[in-house]
Amino acid sequence: MIIETPDDVTRAVLGEMHRTPNARTQELLSLLVKHLHGFVREARLTEREFQEAIAAINAIGKRTTPSHNEAMLLAGALGISNLVCLINNTRPTQANNLGPFYRANAPRCDDGESIVRSPTPGPALFFRGRVTDMDARPLADVDVHVWQSSPAGLYENQDSTQAEMNLRGIFTTQPDGTFSFRSVKPAGYPVPIDGPTGALLAAQKRHNMRPAHLHFLLYKPGYKTIASQVYDPEDPHLETDSQFGVTRALIGNYLRTPDGYRLEFTFRLERGEAVLPKAPISEKVGAAT
Amino acid sequence: MIIETPDDVTRAVLGEMHRTPNARTQELLSLLVKHLHGFVREARLTEREFQEAIAAINAIGKRTTPSHNEAMLLAGALGISNLVCLINNTRPTQANNLGPFYRANAPRCDDGESIVRSPTPGPALFFRGRVTDMDARPLADVDVHVWQSSPAGLYENQDSTQAEMNLRGIFTTQPDGTFSFRSVKPAGYPVPIDGPTGALLAAQKRHNMRPAHLHFLLYKPGYKTIASQVYDPEDPHLETDSQFGVTRALIGNYLRTPDGYRLEFTFRLERGEAVLPKAPISEKVGAAT
Repeated sequence: MIIETPDDVTRAVLGEMHRTPNARTQELLSLLVKHLHGFVREARLTEREFQEAIAAINAIGKRTTPSHNEAMLLAGALGISNLVCLINNTRPTQANNLGPFYRANAPRCDDGESIVRSPTPGPALFFRGRVTDMDARPLADVDVHVWQSSPAGLYENQDSTQAEMNLRGIFTTQPDGTFSFRSVKPAGYPVPIDGPTGALLAAQKRHNMRPAHLHFLLYKPGYKTIASQVYDPEDPHLETDSQFGVTRALIGNYLRTPDGYRLEFTFRLERGEAVLPKAPISEKVGAAT
Repeated sequence: MIIETPDDVTRAVLGEMHRTPNARTQELLSLLVKHLHGFVREARLTEREFQEAIAAINAIGKRTTPSHNEAMLLAGALGISNLVCLINNTRPTQANNLGPFYRANAPRCDDGESIVRSPTPGPALFFRGRVTDMDARPLADVDVHVWQSSPAGLYENQDSTQAEMNLRGIFTTQPDGTFSFRSVKPAGYPVPIDGPTGALLAAQKRHNMRPAHLHFLLYKPGYKTIASQVYDPEDPHLETDSQFGVTRALIGNYLRTPDGYRLEFTFRLERGEAVLPKAPISEKVGAAT
């Protein structure tokens, strides 16, 4: 159609939707256009702001590398990640943001094994998890992917001093639904601020810290795969997580032991589709040739 | 805050806005969060769709180079560019999308000069423009940036066979408000479909053609700078422009002459701020070292 008014533009774009063969794609694109146009209209976005937005969107992908996923980081900083999580899982849920640091193909581990693969100073942690169905019946043979930051607040993919796959591993639950591993207590950490997410946080005068946490991904055919994070209740940034990830259901309970800490946590899985997410990053920093 | 429900996430994100020192930034970010969260909620975006969206957003910047601006192209394909244009200019307006092909620093030209800088087969075009204020009084000393595709449908920045800055130039209006140049008649062309914009068009079964047009950018201190495009009324894609750019006010009137075509067009400028936009691309294809 030939356009004369702002409403004509929206009509023209929506008028092109009808040939979209996939009904869900058509629905998603129609809603995307509705909300994007709604934003432009309500904000009365100026031409200069539009140019700046275009540059910012291009900068997201420019900052993304095999060892860093800026779009995922930014989605967290805007609360999108946890919103998606909470609307897709029966609440209260142990599901939480996958986050930008999950890597596929971590080493498979025996129950109780350590995931410390290179010298990693810090307090020792013994973690014992339990996986059940929604009726609290134990689930055996659940693949539990574990990953975490070091006590210095860095994931191995960000830190060339850590061995490949340090503080990462895949465990399998025992017949009683439990799994356990030895590690070090993770520290909270600043998210990278040298890209668009940093510009957002700076513009808002927000800090860029995440409270300390352990990551999990739980996979068993017949059950809905969930990512989870278990947070440290004593972290000073628990209430102001820069990724808006901390839910009441995910605050852990660290117990001091003679040689460090012990943490126990129970995860519940609901019936559903088991799908491993595509890993947001594929490589350790500096691994690219 | 500690989050329990989807509404808590939105509240938490909006609750972080209050420290933003710049009031307009705060307004824009608050509205962006409102509309993005609104989209996620209304679409009930699944976790898999969210992962796909993250990958698509990163792909935009990945496809962007000094000679290609994918975010600008995608914004056009979603109607955002023309919507921004129409809400920022008094209608009817000659303002139109800047588009992804504007380059700064084209050669300055004398009135009537040719912008054909290397052999460019195709019908000759004589263009004569007139620039006035909103009361139809002629405006002298307006810088008029001109750029266009070749009769083969390629901009010089996309085509290594064309000379640097072929079919680009900057003219200055005469005391009577007119400017003129010689060129070749531009052809319609397909927009690149090897990135996210191509994926969008394919998913919707939309063609990727733009109707033939000439680009203009008009700059004079004291007047609002506008980009403009003048379209060919006989182009078969006039009503289905893949960038939703064709407005009634911008359809030209080509006249046949013994040696080609003649096109006259009048642009009106309103009082306002003169600002040259940042060029979406900086280089000719293959120019990067």
